[in-house]
Amino acid sequence: MRALWLERGRLELREVPEPRPAPGEALVRVRRAGVCGTDLALLDGYLPFAGIPGHEFVGEVVAAADDPAWVGRRVVGEINVACGACAACRHGRATHCERREVLGLRGRHGACAPLLRLPLANLHALPDALDDETAVFVEPAAAALHVLDAVDVGPGDIVVVIGGGRLGTLVAQALRSAGCAPLVIVRNEARRARLEALGLEVGTRDDLPPRRADVVVECSGAPEGLALARLALRPRGTLVLKSTSRGVTPVDLSGVVVDELTLVGSRCGAFGPALQALARGTLRVAPLIDGRYPLEQAAAAFAHAARAGTMKVLIEP
Amino acid sequence: MRALWLERGRLELREVPEPRPAPGEALVRVRRAGVCGTDLALLDGYLPFAGIPGHEFVGEVVAAADDPAWVGRRVVGEINVACGACAACRHGRATHCERREVLGLRGRHGACAPLLRLPLANLHALPDALDDETAVFVEPAAAALHVLDAVDVGPGDIVVVIGGGRLGTLVAQALRSAGCAPLVIVRNEARRARLEALGLEVGTRDDLPPRRADVVVECSGAPEGLALARLALRPRGTLVLKSTSRGVTPVDLSGVVVDELTLVGSRCGAFGPALQALARGTLRVAPLIDGRYPLEQAAAAFAHAARAGTMKVLIEP
Repeated sequence: MRALWLERGRLELREVPEPRPAPGEALVRVRRAGVCGTDLALLDGYLPFAGIPGHEFVGEVVAAADDPAWVGRRVVGEINVACGACAACRHGRATHCERREVLGLRGRHGACAPLLRLPLANLHALPDALDDETAVFVEPAAAALHVLDAVDVGPGDIVVVIGGGRLGTLVAQALRSAGCAPLVIVRNEARRARLEALGLEVGTRDDLPPRRADVVVECSGAPEGLALARLALRPRGTLVLKSTSRGVTPVDLSGVVVDELTLVGSRCGAFGPALQALARGTLRVAPLIDGRYPLEQAAAAFAHAARAGTMKVLIEP
Repeated sequence: MRALWLERGRLELREVPEPRPAPGEALVRVRRAGVCGTDLALLDGYLPFAGIPGHEFVGEVVAAADDPAWVGRRVVGEINVACGACAACRHGRATHCERREVLGLRGRHGACAPLLRLPLANLHALPDALDDETAVFVEPAAAALHVLDAVDVGPGDIVVVIGGGRLGTLVAQALRSAGCAPLVIVRNEARRARLEALGLEVGTRDDLPPRRADVVVECSGAPEGLALARLALRPRGTLVLKSTSRGVTPVDLSGVVVDELTLVGSRCGAFGPALQALARGTLRVAPLIDGRYPLEQAAAAFAHAARAGTMKVLIEP
């Protein structure tokens, strides 16, 4: 099959063998894939991955030797494939399995291809009411809702989201679902109208509440994101870190001690609640779609996703 | 009176006016003062303080216009003097009052002097059974026990303390009081015997449990402390930061996200539980005393405290 290949900071279309499902796995025909910030970071050398990228997808099961009832179902799939035996797995932290493979990110080809393979245990069948272009957001939606596992927010809390891109927009909606009214700090004013159309409060760095925010969620991935978060956070406030990027960031750790701040890293979330939130419209995603590209133009899709102001670009294999 | 004066990285004895207590304050004659890591950091320019340093003390109340019953009592005193009116104070975070003065650290002269002043509300009367040289540890003991407000540890948890100095030794004993058996990582083997005599487990960086620790507490203040903590922490583990030092530290924030780590800054704790722990011997401090100096030799006391391997140096005004 012909698939997108990422290696050493370059993308190309390449003829590769079709995936052969291992025992317990399904073969899935990809219907939609999404380009994520992590994919762009991958291209920038964030992880030493070489292979087919893409971890956001909706597909249809075309083979499932161990449970043929799956065949024909429209599905999404959790991206971490855990060993089930290590200390992390035994303690219920499967997404932190030390031997894990991660779809399109680590040791396993991803969704920028006509076909992929994943364990049946990773799959979630989609209800008919959830269309492909909504369901393809399940992975970032789950990651956004996972912020609520890290912080307890509600009405009256001062909550700030740094970054009004793909991730920040979903995180702000997730926080709003917990009852607070997050302020989304954007650098790119072009995004303001789109965020306001989703009913979100939008501001720039001049609107940061100095040392008053109970919770700040860093979703910008920009080096100055941490500095903005720091300006806004009150003593004993919590900073949730959602963005991954390459390299190290200088941090005033004494300030973290003196102000007794809490910093929490937050990554993947559970798909079940995310599918519910998408189905109910708690998280609205249709306005985030900026472009659709056939797989043959996947490199152009990545370039579009990387342009300032872009929210979400989809690939249709 | 003659007191120690710290300004622009230099110490000198200087004639200064005796402190005049404000309404609600007591005048306290200092019986013992302790030299803390933060005092040494102050000398290194960590805060723009100019004045009498010293925030660990035991004293005797010699005047208390608003409540003369305090006169003659042996006391220790909480170091943060809060305004009582700002948002932090109103929300029960008085140690984070934005207008706070901090004894010997910010806007208020400290304990390296014959006399100091503090609000009566900050004072704790000492029971006769608690001698001066134990009670002078109440402030670092309270800071050490405050770690237990940040993490929930117990038997079976893998807990590591980076740094076996003044602070690390107290923090390790505080953690042990919660039922775990912390491993204290020392750089200076000379400290090993003293820590082992306190019943603590001691190791070097070669003994770190790689990616297995549930909780790590950084007490070294050294730049490599964070790197050692990172080596030991398991995914979703918690790093408590206790040390303050000048400057910024490069941090791999993506690693914090991917491993979903929690970093918590921890500073001052409550004196009540600390006095109880010192009285019960839960925290043993007598073996930590390395030297006693009269106030006239306070600069020598600071120099002694700064030497590698030193635990605690006391000053007797």
